[in-house]
Amino acid sequence: MAEPIDAYLEPIDFFFDFSSPYGYFAAARIDSIAARHGRSVTWRPILLGAVFKVTGQQPLPTIPLKGDYIRHDLVRSARLFRLPFKVPTTFPVASTAACRAFYSATDANPELAKRFALAVYTAYFVHDRDISAPEVIVDVATQVGIAREDITRALNEPALRDRLRSEVEDAIARGVFGSPYFIVDDEAFWGSDRIDQVERWLSSGGW
Amino acid sequence: MAEPIDAYLEPIDFFFDFSSPYGYFAAARIDSIAARHGRSVTWRPILLGAVFKVTGQQPLPTIPLKGDYIRHDLVRSARLFRLPFKVPTTFPVASTAACRAFYSATDANPELAKRFALAVYTAYFVHDRDISAPEVIVDVATQVGIAREDITRALNEPALRDRLRSEVEDAIARGVFGSPYFIVDDEAFWGSDRIDQVERWLSSGGW
Repeated sequence: MAEPIDAYLEPIDFFFDFSSPYGYFAAARIDSIAARHGRSVTWRPILLGAVFKVTGQQPLPTIPLKGDYIRHDLVRSARLFRLPFKVPTTFPVASTAACRAFYSATDANPELAKRFALAVYTAYFVHDRDISAPEVIVDVATQVGIAREDITRALNEPALRDRLRSEVEDAIARGVFGSPYFIVDDEAFWGSDRIDQVERWLSSGGW
Repeated sequence: MAEPIDAYLEPIDFFFDFSSPYGYFAAARIDSIAARHGRSVTWRPILLGAVFKVTGQQPLPTIPLKGDYIRHDLVRSARLFRLPFKVPTTFPVASTAACRAFYSATDANPELAKRFALAVYTAYFVHDRDISAPEVIVDVATQVGIAREDITRALNEPALRDRLRSEVEDAIARGVFGSPYFIVDDEAFWGSDRIDQVERWLSSGGW
């Protein structure tokens, strides 16, 4: 049974890219895990493309041998987590529009922004929709109850472009190099296969 | 309690690099996990340097941001697995001599070769010895009971150089791109954090 969220404990920071399938697997699970330990989660979508410019890394699907393994591992992992999943036709894609839409909503209503984020992941990894297209992002946003005029305005607002840039810069400054990436009380965990360790850290305060 | 090893079941293939710390964590655990399910394990040391030429990847410690994370994750993971561990002064190093020594022993006596491999990992990740030096490899080999003249001869034998090259080529042909890497009945698992999935696969035959 979930404990009440403890306002004296820092939220967990959850960094992810909207075209990261392991980010999708993590997004589906992290809030309920945190809630079991009385913790909230701050979601922070980022652009892995900008991060990879710093680290010199490449998107997983483009790496020889590893790309093929990852395609298989994703399908197998989804089956293990009992999550619907299909490798998208175009993978990865740019997620700038999705990120801006998220940040337009999250300050006023973080729970709505999370529902939107999960709907973007579902559009991409279940229904194979092209989430790089602004019109798809507008459609997904209206599905979860964001007003069409709000989301259309948001996607063209320079302030949101700046917000996204500064979120990505902050993430890099904090060491984020992949998706998903969690920071729990200054302790960093990378990858959806570190979620069990995140939970162990939350329950024990370290080891 | 361990079941007897079932000779009708294929061994698990375990690929690793001697300078891979996650390979060390896996080497310490994989045989006992396999044995719980009546399975044996064939150890196959490889040279990640040769693999990275195919995949275009870099050694973990050299990657910006990720390198720092990995150093921290290694120490934290070792504590979780209750394994002695220290980040070596020089990391990674070339492991050609260790690989040749391993293959000189494994056909005649795979259990002795495994003891040697674990001793190499201990020399490197616990005692910070330079395992790229042939004299260190000779010393470690004699510690586990390999005759000094046998190991000295082996390190200079052209047949072992060819054996190592063909083992690495075979690994790449089978899709191996990292360390540790497991193949269980044609199902591939990469990374020490996939060992739990390897065990689940062994117990259920898949999911």
